[in-house]
Amino acid sequence: MSIQLGPDYVRAIAPYQAGKPISEVAREFGLDEAKIVKLASNENPLGMPESARRAMQAAFDELARYPDANGFELKQAISARYGVPQDWITLGNGSNDILELAAHALVQPGESVVYAQYSFAVYPLATQAVGGRGIVVAAKDYGHDLDAMAAAIAADTRLVYIANPNNPTGTFLPAEKIAAFLARVPANVVVVLDEAYNEYLAPELQYDSIAWVREYPNLIVSRTLSKAYGLAGLRVGFAIAQPPLTDLLNRIRQPFNVNSLAQAAAVAALNDTEFLARSARLNADGYRQLTAAFEAMGLEYVPSFGNFVLVRVGDDDGAGARVNLALLKQGVIVRPVASYGLPQWLRISIGLPEENEAFIAALKKVLS
Amino acid sequence: MSIQLGPDYVRAIAPYQAGKPISEVAREFGLDEAKIVKLASNENPLGMPESARRAMQAAFDELARYPDANGFELKQAISARYGVPQDWITLGNGSNDILELAAHALVQPGESVVYAQYSFAVYPLATQAVGGRGIVVAAKDYGHDLDAMAAAIAADTRLVYIANPNNPTGTFLPAEKIAAFLARVPANVVVVLDEAYNEYLAPELQYDSIAWVREYPNLIVSRTLSKAYGLAGLRVGFAIAQPPLTDLLNRIRQPFNVNSLAQAAAVAALNDTEFLARSARLNADGYRQLTAAFEAMGLEYVPSFGNFVLVRVGDDDGAGARVNLALLKQGVIVRPVASYGLPQWLRISIGLPEENEAFIAALKKVLS
Repeated sequence: MSIQLGPDYVRAIAPYQAGKPISEVAREFGLDEAKIVKLASNENPLGMPESARRAMQAAFDELARYPDANGFELKQAISARYGVPQDWITLGNGSNDILELAAHALVQPGESVVYAQYSFAVYPLATQAVGGRGIVVAAKDYGHDLDAMAAAIAADTRLVYIANPNNPTGTFLPAEKIAAFLARVPANVVVVLDEAYNEYLAPELQYDSIAWVREYPNLIVSRTLSKAYGLAGLRVGFAIAQPPLTDLLNRIRQPFNVNSLAQAAAVAALNDTEFLARSARLNADGYRQLTAAFEAMGLEYVPSFGNFVLVRVGDDDGAGARVNLALLKQGVIVRPVASYGLPQWLRISIGLPEENEAFIAALKKVLS
Repeated sequence: MSIQLGPDYVRAIAPYQAGKPISEVAREFGLDEAKIVKLASNENPLGMPESARRAMQAAFDELARYPDANGFELKQAISARYGVPQDWITLGNGSNDILELAAHALVQPGESVVYAQYSFAVYPLATQAVGGRGIVVAAKDYGHDLDAMAAAIAADTRLVYIANPNNPTGTFLPAEKIAAFLARVPANVVVVLDEAYNEYLAPELQYDSIAWVREYPNLIVSRTLSKAYGLAGLRVGFAIAQPPLTDLLNRIRQPFNVNSLAQAAAVAALNDTEFLARSARLNADGYRQLTAAFEAMGLEYVPSFGNFVLVRVGDDDGAGARVNLALLKQGVIVRPVASYGLPQWLRISIGLPEENEAFIAALKKVLS
C-alpha cells in the first residue's frame, strides 16, 4: 500500500538480530539438535539453578492468575541483597526492558542519547524507538572513552548508556573512572550504568555502584538475571535508582512485565550464592581455555571481563561472516558482530569445557 | 531534588492499578490466603490447562537459553489456528504489550488517539506514555458509540482502540457495526480491535475479524491467552495485521518479550479446544448464577459478554469503594472501577460456582 503508517524514525529501525536458536540452525543446516554447540548469546552453560527450578514448581498452581504487578517478594529479595528500599527498584522483563523504559521515560523525539561505539545494540535501538538522536562516541581500545563521552553530552542530551563490562567487546571500566565520569555529568542528564555482566568480575575488580546511586539522583544501575544467574529464558532484570527516577520508570512500566514463574525463579536465584560462585569459576576457567587457544593460533582477541570473548578471525571485512557460516555448518553457533562495525571479529560465549573444545576444534578446521 | 527528569506527559501518568494479589490482601487484612476468593482480574477460575503445564515441563531444561526471539513454534500454532501467514503475527507479553506497541509504533507526542469512555484503562495509559492526546468519546449504554467515534477522528489521529467485548463494562458490538465503522476510518488511521474476551462469545455472536484484517491494511486484531486460555500469569498475547503494519510493530517489539515457558505453554493452550469449551461453559453458567442473584437483590448490572459483570452497588459515589472494602474484610476481592468514572459500580469476575456463591453471600451481608 502507498500510505505510510508510523513515524519515519520507527520505520527506519532495523530490528535486533538475536542469536540463532539451536532449533533454527538444525532446520537450516539439516543438523542434529543434540550435536549443536551454541556459544552465541552469552548464556550460562550450567543451565538454570536447581533452586530456581524448585521455586517455579511451587508457583505452577497460580498461573491462571495475573503476576504480582508490584513484585513484592522479588523486590524484597533485591532489597535485602543490595541494601536499598523497595521504592528504589524497578522490575524489568530482562534488563532489555529497563534499557527501553529509560529511553521511553526520559527522551522525546529529537532529543539526544549518548553511547559508545561497539556498545550494546539495544542502546541505539531504544534511542531510535523514541525518535531520539544517537550521539555515538568513538571507542578507545574497543571500550568506552568516558572523557570523550562526558564531552559529547549536548544541551538536549537526556540519557547516557554505559556498559560495564561492555558487550560485545568485554572491556571493563575501573571504578575510579566511572566515579569521575558521574561527577562530570549534568544533573538533568540520566546515566544508565548497565551491569549485565557484573557477576563475572573478579572480587578485586568489584565496586559499589549502589553507593553512587545514593549520591546521584540521575543514576540508574541496571542488572539482569539472564547471565550469571542462568535465567535468560525467563526474562528478569531490574533497575536501582532513587525514588523520583524509579517512580518515573514505573509510570511507563507494563504492570505485568515480569511473569509469575520468572518472579518465583528470580527470588530463588538471587539467594543462590553457591550457584553464582560456580558460574563465575566455570567462566574464569573457560576464559583461560579459549584465550590460550587463540594465542596458540595467533588470533587477536580483546581481553574480556564478561562471559564471552571477541576474537579477530581474519583481515578482510568478509572474515566474520565467512568463518561464522563455516562454523554453523559444523554445528557451532557463535555471534557475528558486523552489525556492530566489527566485520573481522566474532563473539564467542564461554561454554562448558567440552563446548569450548568443540568450538576450538571447529575453528581450527575452518581456519586451516 | 528540584530538577525535573522526563517529559511532563510521563510525569503525569497515574500507573495502572492492578487487582490486589491474594497474598497482599491476606497481609493487609490479616486473613488466611486459602480462604480468600479473588474475583478481581477476569482470570480463568479453572486455572491453567493441564496441556500447557505439561508443555512447560518439557521446556524446563532450556531456561538458561534466551527465548526464541522469532517465536517460531508459537507463530506456527497461531498461523494454523487463524489461517494467516507467520509474517502477519506479532507476539506480545500479554495483549497489554500489543496495545502499547501500537501506540509506540504509530503515535508521536501531540498526536491524538481515539477511544471510548469506560473502555480499558491501558488505552489512555499507552496514549499518555507516548505523549499522545486522548480523544475520549462518550459511551452509549456503557458501550462504544462507533458513530461518534468515527466522527471524533481528527486530522492528527493516528490510532483508535476498540474493545469487543469491552472491559470493564462487558458490552458487545455486533459484527455489522464494526464493519460499518472500519469502512469509515481513513486509511492513515490504525484501528486496534482488542478481542481479549472473544473466546467467551456464544457461537452465534462470533464473527470473522481476520477477514477484516485481510481487507484493511490499517487494522490490528489483538488477542490474549490470559483469559479463556488460562495463562494470565505467563503473559502471552498476539496481534494479527497485514505485513507492513506487523513489520512496524516488530521493529519496536523487545526481541525477547515472550519468555520460553510462556511460548511453550501457549502452543499447547492454543490447541486445547476442549479446555476452551469448558472455560466458556463454566463462564456461561457463572454468568447466570451471578445475574440471577443481582436480580433477586434488585441490583442493576450491565449485561455482559465477557467473563465478568459490572454491578451497581449503591446510589452514591462512595458506594463502590465502601462495598469493596467491606468485601475485602470478608476475604472477597473484586474490582472497584471508580478510576473508570464508575464509582457506584464494582466489576465482578466470574469464578467457580462456589466462589460466585461466596461472593454473593458476602455481598448480601454487606448490603443488608
